[in-house]
Amino acid sequence: MADTYDFGLVGLGVMGRNFILNVADNGFTAFGNDLDEEKVNALIAEGGDTSKVNATSDVATFVGALSTPRKIMLLVPAGKVVDLVIDGLLPHLDKGDIIIDGGNSFFTDTDRREAYLQQKGINFFGAGVSGGAKGARKGPSIMPGGSREAYQYVKPIFEAVSAKYKGEPCVAYLGPKSAGNYVKMVHNGIEYGLMQLTSEIYDLLKKAGGLTNQELHQTFGDWNAGRLQSFLVEITSEIFAQKDDLADGDLVDKILDKAKQKGTGKWTSQNAMDLGIPVPTIDIAVSMREISALKDERVKADDLYDKPELTSVVKDSLISKAEQALYFSFIMTYAQGMHQLADASKEYGYELQLGEIAKIWRAGCIIRAELLADITSAFQADNNLQNLLLSPSFVDKVKETVGAARELVAYGASNGIPLPGLSNALTYFDAYTSGRLPLNLIQAQRDYFGSHTYERLDKEGIFHTEWED
Amino acid sequence: MADTYDFGLVGLGVMGRNFILNVADNGFTAFGNDLDEEKVNALIAEGGDTSKVNATSDVATFVGALSTPRKIMLLVPAGKVVDLVIDGLLPHLDKGDIIIDGGNSFFTDTDRREAYLQQKGINFFGAGVSGGAKGARKGPSIMPGGSREAYQYVKPIFEAVSAKYKGEPCVAYLGPKSAGNYVKMVHNGIEYGLMQLTSEIYDLLKKAGGLTNQELHQTFGDWNAGRLQSFLVEITSEIFAQKDDLADGDLVDKILDKAKQKGTGKWTSQNAMDLGIPVPTIDIAVSMREISALKDERVKADDLYDKPELTSVVKDSLISKAEQALYFSFIMTYAQGMHQLADASKEYGYELQLGEIAKIWRAGCIIRAELLADITSAFQADNNLQNLLLSPSFVDKVKETVGAARELVAYGASNGIPLPGLSNALTYFDAYTSGRLPLNLIQAQRDYFGSHTYERLDKEGIFHTEWED
Repeated sequence: MADTYDFGLVGLGVMGRNFILNVADNGFTAFGNDLDEEKVNALIAEGGDTSKVNATSDVATFVGALSTPRKIMLLVPAGKVVDLVIDGLLPHLDKGDIIIDGGNSFFTDTDRREAYLQQKGINFFGAGVSGGAKGARKGPSIMPGGSREAYQYVKPIFEAVSAKYKGEPCVAYLGPKSAGNYVKMVHNGIEYGLMQLTSEIYDLLKKAGGLTNQELHQTFGDWNAGRLQSFLVEITSEIFAQKDDLADGDLVDKILDKAKQKGTGKWTSQNAMDLGIPVPTIDIAVSMREISALKDERVKADDLYDKPELTSVVKDSLISKAEQALYFSFIMTYAQGMHQLADASKEYGYELQLGEIAKIWRAGCIIRAELLADITSAFQADNNLQNLLLSPSFVDKVKETVGAARELVAYGASNGIPLPGLSNALTYFDAYTSGRLPLNLIQAQRDYFGSHTYERLDKEGIFHTEWED
Repeated sequence: MADTYDFGLVGLGVMGRNFILNVADNGFTAFGNDLDEEKVNALIAEGGDTSKVNATSDVATFVGALSTPRKIMLLVPAGKVVDLVIDGLLPHLDKGDIIIDGGNSFFTDTDRREAYLQQKGINFFGAGVSGGAKGARKGPSIMPGGSREAYQYVKPIFEAVSAKYKGEPCVAYLGPKSAGNYVKMVHNGIEYGLMQLTSEIYDLLKKAGGLTNQELHQTFGDWNAGRLQSFLVEITSEIFAQKDDLADGDLVDKILDKAKQKGTGKWTSQNAMDLGIPVPTIDIAVSMREISALKDERVKADDLYDKPELTSVVKDSLISKAEQALYFSFIMTYAQGMHQLADASKEYGYELQLGEIAKIWRAGCIIRAELLADITSAFQADNNLQNLLLSPSFVDKVKETVGAARELVAYGASNGIPLPGLSNALTYFDAYTSGRLPLNLIQAQRDYFGSHTYERLDKEGIFHTEWED
């Protein structure tokens, strides 16, 4: 048994088990490791043939079973567990072996671990994996970053197990160091934005249009057959069709409106602020999860304030505008995320190819969408494109749909239906396309009270005024 | 000269020089220190009588001139300089001496420094100072945190030099550790929000109402005589009256619309995300400064997209609505900041009295406003108030003005005038006052693709569904 398995995987939770079975399905032999004997046995049972899929709770046996250079993927919770697992493996590894962290590790942790392991001659990859449990089993999108030379050993396996978009694998070497984790983080930030936007459109269609769950199922399903085709729109349609197992009615109506978060959206927003890149649709998606958590306060506040009476709308027209507004705001969200990636690439030396990234997001991952084919083309045409909104191929898409976004934001504001994601998508667009913004006043205020100086439109230099009061 | 001066100050830039002269004006003797001889001499010249105000570039002479326990304030740039100055002072200090950092240090740096100095028997205060150069000279708002016992030595001086609101000093002991820096950070976050909001209202009045700078001067001046009375509204009025020294016309029109930032707004937003507290009006103010910096991209984008034609408005009605909307959105911004303080107080053990904080913000600082008298009363009535919006005294103020906010947000959205701060104030209000939000859909999506589970409205427990696709 020694030295024969192509691929090792630590962490046999649902993601890990599914990933290893996917590897085996693709003709590679794979060996799993987990402290939990039950998970080890479950994998052996499910794998069927131990010459193809095997597992152990013993680290030495596990490492010894792998062919060199060893390719060991970790699918364990981000944080200290990753360090513990690495330290457990180290005594058994040889120089040139490869460890791949497939979790949502914070990118600076990945940089730290890579530097630590480099000293010991071990190659370290941070490789974001998106697609959920089903994706891991059937083909996820994989976002690896690390040593370009070592990637050759991992590449055949990742290309085989990854999702395919029209035959092209949804994995590519993205860049050095934590490039892979960073890209996955921003992927998740975009995911937060898209999810918030779908929830707002649901709210609007339900409250203003009176759509039933059956109609919502139909509407999102119809949209998924068009330019909004995407995993999130698809599952949203399916969610509205799900019956409740525990009581009468539809499940969606029984779910508590407190949305949890695991932190990747927050990281995206916080790091965008460090870079100085505006991602307001992602920021507000994070804020809305926070507001949702304040259920008790919201219920109290709801009692204190009245909502405006709803203006009536024509249902078909509302649905059509909602489709346009959702498309518009999806574009704004991807634009913000890609903008952040472009800047992070410079800041952290990732040398990202944005077209490659959009390409490997076209299938397998949570934010996969037909739109990503267009985004891929836009960045393949110009990797230095500063913003998707500046791409000639996006101008018409945006012009065609922004009117509906304007109408719905105005409707939501007038009628007390909160559409914060859509509003931020629209004000982002309106601000980004304003050659002149009123922030000259802010510079005047800053100079007035803090002597912070200002620049002028008509002259070069730095100026300060002794303001008269 | 030895041992006789009441107060020492390191860093004789404009803030430091003004602060020390303020101390002397109030009957205390003060000694300054700066590496820069020119600044030392300038202070001595300006102080007049060296038995009252003196200065030196020599650290030993400086420390030796102060009565014990020495009270030494630092007004130097935040960051490494603070550590360098502290290390320079240390060999000359005695146990029980007090160092006060008056800069915008990040709160975790203050905690680190306090722990470091505590070992050496030195008391350390982080004390935010707001009011700009003029405030430092005539009376700032001071936000000190640190050892309650040591505060007795600092208190008489701070109470004398601080701004007064109806005779009450705008300084109070706020809490242990970095409480003072934290409060100042959130003060600045609120400041970012209020500045963004005034700039949006300026834009709207100018574009939609066609107001001239003279009319803007008048309008903000009128507002400042009413419930919007505040430092920022006051100086905004004055800014519109400022003539350009270098060319014909009004200065405000010549200032480049790229707003800079020094980081305190960003820190507020980032830390609010760590706490899980929504501050979307502050977040968007940070984003807008970022978007403003992208001037070249904005000019390009402006060429690619058309703005809608403006719907005409009645000027007087627009001005009246703008006043209401600004008042409404100021309330939302303070509400968010206070909410963050309440949560930070629990998280970091600051034991903040929110009524005390609002009270010392009523004069001297940049966010001083008539509104803060009401906020003070609301939190004095209930220090555990979860959100200003839940205060009985604010319900009518909000109900009376939210309608105008709705109208203007709708107008801005329809007409392509970006009002992101106002929009986020409104959607924050609408979301916070919604007993039910559509984020049940987000929980459904999370459970669908990631088995992240959900809670139910009708049953206790954690649930997971095998979703049908």
